[in-house]
Amino acid sequence: MKKFSVIGNRMPRIDAIDQVTGRAQFIPDLMRHNMLHGAIVRSPIPHGRILQVDTTKSKRVPGVKAVITANDIPNTRFGFQMGEANKRPLTGDKVRYIGDELAAVAAETEEAAQEACSLIQVELEPLPALFDPESALQPGAPLIHIDKPGNISGEVHRIFGDVGEGFLKSDHIFEATYRTTGVAHCCMETRGALAEFDNQGRLTLWSTTQFPHVLREIMSCVLQLPIGKIRVCKAHIGGGFGSRQSMDPVDPICAFLAQKSGRPVKLIKTRSEEFVSDRIRYPMVITVKTGVTSDGVIMARQVNILTDGGAYNDQGLAVTASAASRCVNLYRVPYVKFDGKVVFTNKVFGGAFRGYGGPQIIFGIESQMDEIAEELGIDPLKLRLLNANQKGDVTVGGARFASCGFAECLNQSAAVAGWKEKRGKLKPRGIGMASFIHTGAGSINAHGGSFSAAFVKVEYDGSVDLMTGVPDIGQGSDTALAQIAAEELGVRFEDVRVHAGDTAITPSTQGVRGSRETFVAGNAVKLAAQQVKLQLLERAASLLAIGKEGLDIADGKIYVKSNPEQFVTVAQAAGKPMFDRSSAFPLGVPVLASACYMDPVSELPDKATGYGNPSPAWVFGTQVAEVEVDVKTGIVSVLRVVAAHDVGRAINPMAIEGQLEGSIAQGVGMALTERVIWESGAVLNQQLADYKLPTTLDVPQITSILVETDDPYGPFGAKGVGEAGLVPTAAAIANAIYDAIGVRIRELPITPEKVLTAMKKIGK
Amino acid sequence: MKKFSVIGNRMPRIDAIDQVTGRAQFIPDLMRHNMLHGAIVRSPIPHGRILQVDTTKSKRVPGVKAVITANDIPNTRFGFQMGEANKRPLTGDKVRYIGDELAAVAAETEEAAQEACSLIQVELEPLPALFDPESALQPGAPLIHIDKPGNISGEVHRIFGDVGEGFLKSDHIFEATYRTTGVAHCCMETRGALAEFDNQGRLTLWSTTQFPHVLREIMSCVLQLPIGKIRVCKAHIGGGFGSRQSMDPVDPICAFLAQKSGRPVKLIKTRSEEFVSDRIRYPMVITVKTGVTSDGVIMARQVNILTDGGAYNDQGLAVTASAASRCVNLYRVPYVKFDGKVVFTNKVFGGAFRGYGGPQIIFGIESQMDEIAEELGIDPLKLRLLNANQKGDVTVGGARFASCGFAECLNQSAAVAGWKEKRGKLKPRGIGMASFIHTGAGSINAHGGSFSAAFVKVEYDGSVDLMTGVPDIGQGSDTALAQIAAEELGVRFEDVRVHAGDTAITPSTQGVRGSRETFVAGNAVKLAAQQVKLQLLERAASLLAIGKEGLDIADGKIYVKSNPEQFVTVAQAAGKPMFDRSSAFPLGVPVLASACYMDPVSELPDKATGYGNPSPAWVFGTQVAEVEVDVKTGIVSVLRVVAAHDVGRAINPMAIEGQLEGSIAQGVGMALTERVIWESGAVLNQQLADYKLPTTLDVPQITSILVETDDPYGPFGAKGVGEAGLVPTAAAIANAIYDAIGVRIRELPITPEKVLTAMKKIGK
Repeated sequence: MKKFSVIGNRMPRIDAIDQVTGRAQFIPDLMRHNMLHGAIVRSPIPHGRILQVDTTKSKRVPGVKAVITANDIPNTRFGFQMGEANKRPLTGDKVRYIGDELAAVAAETEEAAQEACSLIQVELEPLPALFDPESALQPGAPLIHIDKPGNISGEVHRIFGDVGEGFLKSDHIFEATYRTTGVAHCCMETRGALAEFDNQGRLTLWSTTQFPHVLREIMSCVLQLPIGKIRVCKAHIGGGFGSRQSMDPVDPICAFLAQKSGRPVKLIKTRSEEFVSDRIRYPMVITVKTGVTSDGVIMARQVNILTDGGAYNDQGLAVTASAASRCVNLYRVPYVKFDGKVVFTNKVFGGAFRGYGGPQIIFGIESQMDEIAEELGIDPLKLRLLNANQKGDVTVGGARFASCGFAECLNQSAAVAGWKEKRGKLKPRGIGMASFIHTGAGSINAHGGSFSAAFVKVEYDGSVDLMTGVPDIGQGSDTALAQIAAEELGVRFEDVRVHAGDTAITPSTQGVRGSRETFVAGNAVKLAAQQVKLQLLERAASLLAIGKEGLDIADGKIYVKSNPEQFVTVAQAAGKPMFDRSSAFPLGVPVLASACYMDPVSELPDKATGYGNPSPAWVFGTQVAEVEVDVKTGIVSVLRVVAAHDVGRAINPMAIEGQLEGSIAQGVGMALTERVIWESGAVLNQQLADYKLPTTLDVPQITSILVETDDPYGPFGAKGVGEAGLVPTAAAIANAIYDAIGVRIRELPITPEKVLTAMKKIGK
Repeated sequence: MKKFSVIGNRMPRIDAIDQVTGRAQFIPDLMRHNMLHGAIVRSPIPHGRILQVDTTKSKRVPGVKAVITANDIPNTRFGFQMGEANKRPLTGDKVRYIGDELAAVAAETEEAAQEACSLIQVELEPLPALFDPESALQPGAPLIHIDKPGNISGEVHRIFGDVGEGFLKSDHIFEATYRTTGVAHCCMETRGALAEFDNQGRLTLWSTTQFPHVLREIMSCVLQLPIGKIRVCKAHIGGGFGSRQSMDPVDPICAFLAQKSGRPVKLIKTRSEEFVSDRIRYPMVITVKTGVTSDGVIMARQVNILTDGGAYNDQGLAVTASAASRCVNLYRVPYVKFDGKVVFTNKVFGGAFRGYGGPQIIFGIESQMDEIAEELGIDPLKLRLLNANQKGDVTVGGARFASCGFAECLNQSAAVAGWKEKRGKLKPRGIGMASFIHTGAGSINAHGGSFSAAFVKVEYDGSVDLMTGVPDIGQGSDTALAQIAAEELGVRFEDVRVHAGDTAITPSTQGVRGSRETFVAGNAVKLAAQQVKLQLLERAASLLAIGKEGLDIADGKIYVKSNPEQFVTVAQAAGKPMFDRSSAFPLGVPVLASACYMDPVSELPDKATGYGNPSPAWVFGTQVAEVEVDVKTGIVSVLRVVAAHDVGRAINPMAIEGQLEGSIAQGVGMALTERVIWESGAVLNQQLADYKLPTTLDVPQITSILVETDDPYGPFGAKGVGEAGLVPTAAAIANAIYDAIGVRIRELPITPEKVLTAMKKIGK
């Protein structure tokens, strides 16, 4: 007999048809009575003092209703870490990167707003600019933030044991430096917002956000309005990938313009604006030093990371700390030392991006694992199996693994990819692997603990409304949560409707981040569904004159366990509609419940040492990439990726495969083609035509293997999987390239030029 | 010390400023991407067989996207009582009144839709038509519904004791017939709807409705869609007064047009269409026979009502049964017999209208009370006091009065109005009184029992979101429910936000009807707030290290009862926002709750006899009207109305006064000027210029007296008051006219012609 009715089924996304037929309403589709259109003036230089922003002429453009500069808004700053060196929505003292917001306009038409922007006269005194972290750290370098000496945004340090002792116990020591660069999220839809105030001074903000409740908090600080005066609604949204887990200046700018004009204001960034001003993946310089015994046991690891933070503080420290966690926790390492430094430069600043530091550090660690295997003459698969963490392990950094399918992922991906048959035997094709660890329900913030809550009600036809704080941004959470509610309640999947992404009607939660939605919101939904189920069982018990312990629910029927033919439907127990007088069942008094879930496992890491378990669940996995290198041009083609991921429980296998396929495509881009190209601080590739995202033709054959480890805390055993697919891809490809042509490339993206140069170096 | 912090305060309505400044968005303000406009073709004759509806030419009008007739929609009918002789959204067999819907169009513009309507060719075979219930009851009269012999929609009978015996015990018997006519609701905004389907076949309907959840059920029957596929949202709405406690054909027509065109469709009725096709107050012919002893004790009452039901079945039976309840339950009457008959005619049909049969029957009963007093030489006030029901009474019909301020209302209104000083001494001015009983939380439907439910959540700033099924249609329920939540929780009024009127996110309830919102939804909100309060107290208890019994909440502070200076704020207990790291309080895990309230008092009246208590609370009251009659022109001016109403507890005295003032204005209209004028079934007065609503200049000075009786079941003792103000007004004015000029007018409205004719008859 099947264990589950709905869990594990391959479900198309609830909003799939509306999305592909164009019915889904994105911010550009939203209209409000009397709505104005906004536009933004941005800095043309990377670093400079603001002498004057003259808006006189712009205000004369017909149709212009509001023009604002830094002088018109409170002097508040925002960022992931609220505090110094954060950004203002409109900058007032200095500009710090090309694209920094200086002024904004709201007008009757987009054209009038653009024209007015072109008439705003900005006088700037240029200052010397810094474009890489090494220069920014030079003594005497100009300061980007006056209160940040040495241009240092912050530092992350971890010491678990005496790493020197670890190296003394090692037979071999490996050290190398790996580099990653700025990568753009490239969501299908650019950022936008629509802001409207009512006459009580309450703001409704429709935004391309992946964390409506947290956005509301940040808006509250920046607008100096109480949280209760701000309602944030997510419209349909073309992806987030972490970029929308931050507030963009369009959100407060829209609100300020609406406040000043007294009318609703919509503002949508152009693609070019998005490339210039949206947060990117933090570029990192990663030095990894590993000590191993002769038989391959890792004894010590020391990592040093230099993170290019860009012009303002945001998530640089958290992303660097997340990278630290990955290097501490992937393998059994008894001695670890980590030092990270985040440095300001005059470029657009970084932010969250799928994997959150993982793809960067894993590129370093997993490249080096292959270098170690090569040197020691051990098969890379064996080396990883030898050091892999297992269920029940507590790492030197305090992470605890209640479930862990790492070894299964290594073995299954290798088996399916034909590791033994192909490794070293395909030249100029090659095969390479890389593994990863990631949070299965990250709480990310420094408070520890991940929570979510839900409201549930049952309607007269036995269908269910579900209100959850977690918004669906394309990752499919509405669909997964509907499955969890349906399974727990015993109703059909299609009878559950999910309402999400509106702060007024959904309970607070931390939003879409850290792959947490399925785990945390799923548990909250499960709890609320349990309560509703109990009410339905009690009603059915009285209708069937049998104790509720003797009943269960499946497929919309509440049946007698000892005689399944005897049942009442959920619709019948939910009560009869007012106009149905035929029914013998009670009046339609609503069945409803609310529930709150707080994960009981994770904890605030120790402030001094970073020791602790910041996630209630962890996911592991291994990807094996097969590549072909054109030795004449240096062009690398990825032929196949076999991805074995520990997912805890596959709530919706199709959605997970979708996540993996999309992630791997992003990983291929990061590995081979994607990079923001700067020249003197200016982004040269501001269009999708110039920024080389992989197209469908560049995406390899992908084989997904879902390893189910039934996590004891996850809803039905599930763990979060949204980010993981991207994390090891670049490292696996780099390792496959080495297998193919014998060159080790330690800098992403692996362009044809780098391949050819490296081949030349070794005389090929 | 004040008993309450928020209850009893005079609160402006939450939406007041948005309403008066034009920011509130009504259906005409709503826009959807790709939206079409609808229009309707109506019958030009009162009765006829449909031979053909030819839409060929209409489809050729540029911009027309959908044309529908009865052939394009399911053969389902709707009405308050689902069943025979109900209406179809588009009629297919016969037309039964001028205005009956025949076809509809959706087009790119309103103009194109209107043009297409004008090109739809309707061929009708006229049938003899019936315009009054007496003719419709004649043997051999044409049948309006083939399955309804005698043109009888239905009958209501009540026999409590042997009324013949009651009359035998009486010293005097009085009998007279009173007549009321059709009155229109005249909401500020005409009816409209906006319908949109998604690609899963789910409908969202924005409608001018006062019962979103019930509308969803009726739409479900008519559209043949499951309830779960329909979401009904109330936009801002310009009043209801009962008219929007019924589905209008615009709702399903809009949905059918949206279904057929595949695009959103908006349809707004013109004022003229509204006068022609919207339900009216049921006209009644009321014969009242009362037996009394010489000292004025009522011994027996027999009432006969003939209700003009109009062309289709709707609420005629329920309204007539409601009238029956009023005549059984106002005074202590030991023997009662009631016979009501609802008859079809070829006019627009009736529906719910503030008072629900009360204003009609009270006009009869309370006019007759004055006639009895006059004949017996007893002061009308004394006669009423002598027979008035009191707290604890159980009437012969089964109504139970857990609170009753009838005597106080009689005494206080008389005292304030100067009854003793003025009665009989002002000619040609006069003073008259009338009393009433009404449900304080009517459940109306035949199932008995009134329920409501609520979701509540507390935000980080200590503010509260409240989701209730009861929509605010101008009666101020959002404001009253916010007060109840604020009082129960101990937070400030302005910190509560109410979300109502959207079936997807609010629990099912019976809607705005029977003056039930404050009582029923108020109790649900109170229960949910209690649960949330408990959670807050528990959190505060652990923060303050004191037992929660020692704590209470007021003004947003959770304080130690023995030392009020020691407290934490609700905001602090609600948890800190993610970005506030300064707080010593726990992470912002949401505080939330849900609750369901089912009134424990009311019961399903006995099917055979009608015996039972259909409302958990009853309201009573007395109005004293002072009038001046211009004996030359017959024009009656109402100078003052003193209204003393038993409200249980005044949650928001300003809102109650507003309800009373609006109601009394409507009552003045019903008494003196308002009537739908028909000629051969055609409404002659189709515009507000012709239909004589009282203007501000016609509204008398109104003095409201709120008698608080602290109902044991009401939230904080409150009972519903939305309808009551209208119920006795016409009777009080008629009695004042008698006091002024000595003529008894038994037919509404009391036009100058009737006054002059009556005066002539008695030789004045």
